[in-house]
Amino acid sequence: MAAAGTSDDAHAARPRVLVLGGGFAGVGAARQLKDADADVVLVDKHDYHTFQPLLYQLATDLLETAAVGHPLRDLFHEQPNVAVHQASVTGIDLAKREVRFAEMAPVSYDYLVLAVGAQVNFFGTEGAAEHGFPMYTLSDAVRLKEHVLQRWEAADRDPALVEDGALNVVVVGGGATGIETAGALAELYRAEFAKDYPALPQEDARIVLVEAGPALLTMFKSDIRDYTKRTLEKFGVEVVLGEIVASVGPTRVTLKSGTELEAHTLVWGAGLQAAPIAALLGLELEKGNRVPVEADLSVAEHPEVFAVGDVAWITDTKTKQVLPQLGSVALQAGERAGENIALRLAGKDPEPFAYHDKGTMATIGRGAAVMQTARGKTIKGKTASLAWGTVHLALLSTGEDRAKAVVDWTWAGFSHERPGRITVRTDEE
Amino acid sequence: MAAAGTSDDAHAARPRVLVLGGGFAGVGAARQLKDADADVVLVDKHDYHTFQPLLYQLATDLLETAAVGHPLRDLFHEQPNVAVHQASVTGIDLAKREVRFAEMAPVSYDYLVLAVGAQVNFFGTEGAAEHGFPMYTLSDAVRLKEHVLQRWEAADRDPALVEDGALNVVVVGGGATGIETAGALAELYRAEFAKDYPALPQEDARIVLVEAGPALLTMFKSDIRDYTKRTLEKFGVEVVLGEIVASVGPTRVTLKSGTELEAHTLVWGAGLQAAPIAALLGLELEKGNRVPVEADLSVAEHPEVFAVGDVAWITDTKTKQVLPQLGSVALQAGERAGENIALRLAGKDPEPFAYHDKGTMATIGRGAAVMQTARGKTIKGKTASLAWGTVHLALLSTGEDRAKAVVDWTWAGFSHERPGRITVRTDEE
Repeated sequence: MAAAGTSDDAHAARPRVLVLGGGFAGVGAARQLKDADADVVLVDKHDYHTFQPLLYQLATDLLETAAVGHPLRDLFHEQPNVAVHQASVTGIDLAKREVRFAEMAPVSYDYLVLAVGAQVNFFGTEGAAEHGFPMYTLSDAVRLKEHVLQRWEAADRDPALVEDGALNVVVVGGGATGIETAGALAELYRAEFAKDYPALPQEDARIVLVEAGPALLTMFKSDIRDYTKRTLEKFGVEVVLGEIVASVGPTRVTLKSGTELEAHTLVWGAGLQAAPIAALLGLELEKGNRVPVEADLSVAEHPEVFAVGDVAWITDTKTKQVLPQLGSVALQAGERAGENIALRLAGKDPEPFAYHDKGTMATIGRGAAVMQTARGKTIKGKTASLAWGTVHLALLSTGEDRAKAVVDWTWAGFSHERPGRITVRTDEE
Repeated sequence: MAAAGTSDDAHAARPRVLVLGGGFAGVGAARQLKDADADVVLVDKHDYHTFQPLLYQLATDLLETAAVGHPLRDLFHEQPNVAVHQASVTGIDLAKREVRFAEMAPVSYDYLVLAVGAQVNFFGTEGAAEHGFPMYTLSDAVRLKEHVLQRWEAADRDPALVEDGALNVVVVGGGATGIETAGALAELYRAEFAKDYPALPQEDARIVLVEAGPALLTMFKSDIRDYTKRTLEKFGVEVVLGEIVASVGPTRVTLKSGTELEAHTLVWGAGLQAAPIAALLGLELEKGNRVPVEADLSVAEHPEVFAVGDVAWITDTKTKQVLPQLGSVALQAGERAGENIALRLAGKDPEPFAYHDKGTMATIGRGAAVMQTARGKTIKGKTASLAWGTVHLALLSTGEDRAKAVVDWTWAGFSHERPGRITVRTDEE
């Protein structure tokens, strides 16, 4: 018996579509191939799909792991032409149309969807890769939560560590990831840790948000930017604009201006680069090693290869702007790639990708969120907060995830209880 | 500033009660000291309290981590005389009345509650400690779940592993832990994995329950024992009675009769011994290194030291029987120890411990549980299953945990969905 889609035997009767990556882009592509006369093989190095917009909630104990990471296989129970495998890509042979994996036999393809995502870009900042906490993957979020908890536990055992900055956090980046993480951390500190660690001076714990540019949330209008800064400060976040992190040590963060911040935790929410596999393709890459694509999302001179999501450099057909690395772009581009493959399989022409901007939103804290529609309408405060909840609930992939999120949010809202302020080490004796 | 209760300074004005362990026994003791004129210091090596009766549900993906492990600090928000610390005990000096820790300064005490629990007892079975999966701690349950998931993923990549026993599990021990784990694994396999891994022959995956004695659940009456065996077999568990595991390898389990079972997973649900710290006390110990106690739960010649829970060897005042290592015994004994310390602090005499047996129950699978009251009345099937759910919901320590459990159980019951069939590695690159 041979693994579905993993043998190097003569090709099956049906064409094979290989999707690398089970994020928004990969899942979007595979789903659009539901009715295609093809075998779809989706491979991810993890056994879960990550709902990235809520990672900051996992990191700050507003949601738990299973509400943010969903079993990939579960998403395709109703789609028998999809086979899911957990494996890591080690090489892609575009000429031979074959992908190699660390844990299983190579898989050949008729169509390839490259949706392998990104990794954080520290832009060469000294010590950042070693001591910084990125916020891109589910593991990142869990690691950050556990690190912060363990710093509080350490300070609880030895209060001299408070002076040394054990409880202080520097968050880098004034985009959505940075402001959402800083705001939710402040809420966790001021509401929960004040009760959990009554012997520690919670009110002295600093959360410092550092942004290189002159404002937070630059993609938003100025009223939103001002409201965001004001609200973060009200919640107890120090906002530092026009500053860059020069170096990061285990307990110190040095800014370019020379300021040294005592902080045992640095969260990096500033910038991504394509996953390393992009550099192995032998293609010319764009900034951040992203793979440039044609209007139909295929790769130049490889009409059978599509690149979508955070790994891709996509120029919008209408605006001629390069699209940002956002979940909504990834999902829509993934779906377009899937549809284009289905069209090609049916002997039809693929269609160009046009991003439909449904607006942008970010949440700063309890009852405080910001939204801006594609037409430039802005909403802030409680109304935006409610809209935020509704939109994200609708996006969560299954009814169960929705139910979980409702339970967690409701409890956090009414009882100020959090789901899992605990550290579970599976590597312990 | 000095950590609450961790300094070696002159004793505070109030007497100090040091509670080692945050399980049922330790939490029970600390709670009973709510109104005592004393400082209570509770130390556990983890930052969570484990709801052990539901560990098998975590291991088999019926509940998620945060529904079974609850932040210890959260349990004492309303009890200002309790300080919680996360640290590992390295030594106990009964003469000096002081406990040493790996991560913090020694703590001296006026009263000590030893509630450090147990660890699994492999009874010297060859290879069991190396390759077996115990089921006693939260980490154990997560590890078992992740191991089983990874074996299915491996077989999915290379179906030859099925023949080698990658999907097969041997569960050792016909007590509650063994039958609950085996039953829930069978449900996970037959219901969920059949859908998750359509390319694998789920129906060939074996779950073998091995019990040394002539029957399962020996503490129950014979009608219950027969029902349990019959029901497990109906759910697809092979029950082997009168057999002992001789040795365990990474992929093979050898029974004393010579039978070799191909199985990449062995779950050990057969027997406990006291936590290793018990052996360092310099006291005479009972079977399994358990600490014998007087009628008031204090240790002989140390009226200021109480031993409770799985670490203790407690003889019931009424029946003169040694009480089993059960959560209900631990909770009641912990509460008695706490009350006795409160009595002593108030200048009164401590009282002997009498265990109030509220009955025993175990669940075999969906709609199939067994109960036996202290008076010997038995209930089985759906009725027992409903009672089981009610009792456990009532025991879960907070409203939030209850809400979570209801969501998970309801979803699992109605939609056959599970919370988190995923493996999150925080040690990955």
